[in-house]
Amino acid sequence: MGPADLSRALAPLAARVDPRLVVGHETFDDAGIFVLAEDLALVQTVDFFAPIVDDPYAFGQVAAANALSDVYAMGGTPLTALNIVGFPTGKLPIEVLSAILQGGQDKVHEAGASIVGGHTVTDDELKYGLSVTGRADPRRLLTNANARAGDRLVLTKPIGSGLLATALKRADASLAAGSERLLVTTMSTLNRLASEAALAVGVRCATDVTGFGLAGHASHIARASDVSLVIDLERVLVLGDARSAWERGARTGGAERNLEWLERHVDWTGASEWHRALVTDPQTSGGLLLAVPSGVVGEYVSRVPGAVEIGVVEPASGARIRFR
Amino acid sequence: MGPADLSRALAPLAARVDPRLVVGHETFDDAGIFVLAEDLALVQTVDFFAPIVDDPYAFGQVAAANALSDVYAMGGTPLTALNIVGFPTGKLPIEVLSAILQGGQDKVHEAGASIVGGHTVTDDELKYGLSVTGRADPRRLLTNANARAGDRLVLTKPIGSGLLATALKRADASLAAGSERLLVTTMSTLNRLASEAALAVGVRCATDVTGFGLAGHASHIARASDVSLVIDLERVLVLGDARSAWERGARTGGAERNLEWLERHVDWTGASEWHRALVTDPQTSGGLLLAVPSGVVGEYVSRVPGAVEIGVVEPASGARIRFR
Repeated sequence: MGPADLSRALAPLAARVDPRLVVGHETFDDAGIFVLAEDLALVQTVDFFAPIVDDPYAFGQVAAANALSDVYAMGGTPLTALNIVGFPTGKLPIEVLSAILQGGQDKVHEAGASIVGGHTVTDDELKYGLSVTGRADPRRLLTNANARAGDRLVLTKPIGSGLLATALKRADASLAAGSERLLVTTMSTLNRLASEAALAVGVRCATDVTGFGLAGHASHIARASDVSLVIDLERVLVLGDARSAWERGARTGGAERNLEWLERHVDWTGASEWHRALVTDPQTSGGLLLAVPSGVVGEYVSRVPGAVEIGVVEPASGARIRFR
Repeated sequence: MGPADLSRALAPLAARVDPRLVVGHETFDDAGIFVLAEDLALVQTVDFFAPIVDDPYAFGQVAAANALSDVYAMGGTPLTALNIVGFPTGKLPIEVLSAILQGGQDKVHEAGASIVGGHTVTDDELKYGLSVTGRADPRRLLTNANARAGDRLVLTKPIGSGLLATALKRADASLAAGSERLLVTTMSTLNRLASEAALAVGVRCATDVTGFGLAGHASHIARASDVSLVIDLERVLVLGDARSAWERGARTGGAERNLEWLERHVDWTGASEWHRALVTDPQTSGGLLLAVPSGVVGEYVSRVPGAVEIGVVEPASGARIRFR
């Protein structure tokens, strides 16, 4: 669901004041944080969606990597996961469901976690995802509220997966061979290393880039941290043929909703039509976006293959997000 | 999804052997149990479904009570919950979603737990539920594997909610006034007291009665504990007008699937057509079914309003479930 509708639905709900709930759903953070002891917090998240790739095993892997990512984005270590399934019984062979669950389970195991259960409903449309619980040290969390002026922005995966997936669904014949494999490999890569390296070098601010696009998630950091972010558009890595897919007409409803919602937070000066499409493109299982203290940015980037510096954090002034 | 399809889908998946996962999805237990420390286990479950009552706030309450019940059925104390929503954006006003979420949140708060986040997708059909995490003492769990010959079977809520809900959907004009309120009140009652009393008097075996019906969930206890259960059909309490609803033709696909799946586990001798319908009727947020040591059954029943003794546990012989 789009961010505007979601905000409207949640607005009337009174927030609960439980001191153990240190991060709830009010802050647009990636996961909830519930403190059980001085050194033990639960990091919890849920995500599920319709297939974005055709192969059921690959879809399971991508959905699991995507759900696990919210735990990594908060600096947690995944412990357990519950499967969430909507399956069109009778329309698809049951082996498709087994393959999806196998893909999810293998990815959960790769993360060192266990599947502890799940729920399956008969549904017109296939959907799969997971509810994931991790543990974290409450004194060493990654949240979107910890960016400081002077930090550097680092992004750990290329973006454009929404455009590329759309082009693949349209069977765009101009796409490079291997585009689907590139898409699946990128989306199913765990953000584990990106998260562990962040904790190791002393980073305290991260989020993962998913449905609201790079600009949307950047705006969450900017608002929660009360700073402005300047993104150097030429340094943002583009996934495979995403640009030519856009040039040949690939569009998503999600990007349109993101653009509309971002209107009052972003100064689009310096962003071409293409760049607007790129930074509002909804990602699935995107990389981490981190605010890294400038003294350790070199070390962080050298530890995480694919990580690139894409901008800087500035004191709050004017629009939350600007480009150069 | 029916139990037969689900078993087929899960069969090919290799079980993980993590010693911290003491109850996984192989045993048909109500929730997964993951041990974090000698005195701390996570109890985790997920459940969601389409509305079974018209009022959105009541639906939210029922869905939350139902999801929380799995934690109570294992002897846990709910800590956190994540919302899971499929919403037909554009077809229903967003206020409906707010009311559902308010109902869920109020019930979660009644249980002493917090909503820590959630995920909402646009869906043709409205669905709501929660992924719930509780804590439990791993040395004092309620599982479906702990029934012993000689224990008494106790059920803490009347059954027949599936039949009554179906009749209400059909706008059966013969139903008693107040049937909908009775249904909502019963389904939204937390199993908290039933669970706390069980731990207090030393019960170690429980499950909650949900989609597989009383007979289905009883068969899970019988198989996991390697015993047979004898149910005294005349002692099972029936919810409101469920019997007359059935006599006027109320039927569910779930009951049919349950009946088929139970064929080889149940000796139906002594059960009328009506009783078969009753004990296979899929419940939403049903009560706890417990195996209570005979010495404390009086104390247990006196502590839990609505709890009734409905049968006995016998050594395994013949069918897993028999009636008298």
